[in-house]
Amino acid sequence: MRHIISILVEDKFGVLARVAGLFSGRGYNIESLTVNVTERPEVSMMTIVTRGDEHVIEQIIKQLRKLVNVLKVRDLTSFNHIERELVLIKVFVSQKNRGDLYNIVGTFRAKVVDLTPESMVIEITGSQDKLEAFVELVRPYGIIELVRTGRLAIGRGARATSDMDKPKGPANL
Amino acid sequence: MRHIISILVEDKFGVLARVAGLFSGRGYNIESLTVNVTERPEVSMMTIVTRGDEHVIEQIIKQLRKLVNVLKVRDLTSFNHIERELVLIKVFVSQKNRGDLYNIVGTFRAKVVDLTPESMVIEITGSQDKLEAFVELVRPYGIIELVRTGRLAIGRGARATSDMDKPKGPANL
Repeated sequence: MRHIISILVEDKFGVLARVAGLFSGRGYNIESLTVNVTERPEVSMMTIVTRGDEHVIEQIIKQLRKLVNVLKVRDLTSFNHIERELVLIKVFVSQKNRGDLYNIVGTFRAKVVDLTPESMVIEITGSQDKLEAFVELVRPYGIIELVRTGRLAIGRGARATSDMDKPKGPANL
Repeated sequence: MRHIISILVEDKFGVLARVAGLFSGRGYNIESLTVNVTERPEVSMMTIVTRGDEHVIEQIIKQLRKLVNVLKVRDLTSFNHIERELVLIKVFVSQKNRGDLYNIVGTFRAKVVDLTPESMVIEITGSQDKLEAFVELVRPYGIIELVRTGRLAIGRGARATSDMDKPKGPANL
């Protein structure tokens, strides 16, 4: 099963390597990872997407909680949450078919962020389904490059994700 | 100086831990990191933001190129490029001041992705300057939580970033 795990860490040397090492040491691949500073000084937030057996994920989470500099760990899979990802796609486009591509961009509420006589860079955010549908639509133009952030997640409702402690209930929206 | 480095890697166990370890082993903090699968099977792309002395960064890049499973390394700082980041912000909001917040969201072309009687989750993408300006505007409402992806970057122009080999020229747009 797919899991999306939020990890609040102290911003110290080596914490990222230790967290990544814990997954790889158990033969668990990280599908995506994103880490950045937070509003709190000296505290960073990691979001990791991985797939695996429930029992092993539970073990990994227990081990994560024991790591030096790890403050809080939440498996968001068991909470109502929102997932988003940002993708930048560079595609071939000529003056002839540029209009068609602008229509697709508009429909998906994406944005054109760079344009040359033969190429376009498009920025799009959304759930995995939406992003996949968009990529399939622009694929025939010829994808020069596609870069994406790791998946980001936040709990629904008024509480901070790190304070959430209730099992999944009905969606808020 | 601030550097933004793109690293194309084979999707193997431990490569993330080795890359992160190389930075921390030299006392270099990673400000943000994002890694995800690419269009090519078995290949992932990392984007790392770090700050440091030019000479040491050069050394790190040389070492990165020698690592097992590392395919290509580009310091985008020396190329014309676009940087984007995705932020999800949960803020306190009542029925009374909700309208004001919707106006701010509209002005910044952000999106409301969750709403409760006392809170709102907003999705916004952009350059660091834009995101900082937005966060300062919504701060007075009370930030419950703020999560952000690592910075993502793509070279301007029609070539793939990993094929770029020319120094910085005038911007394309």
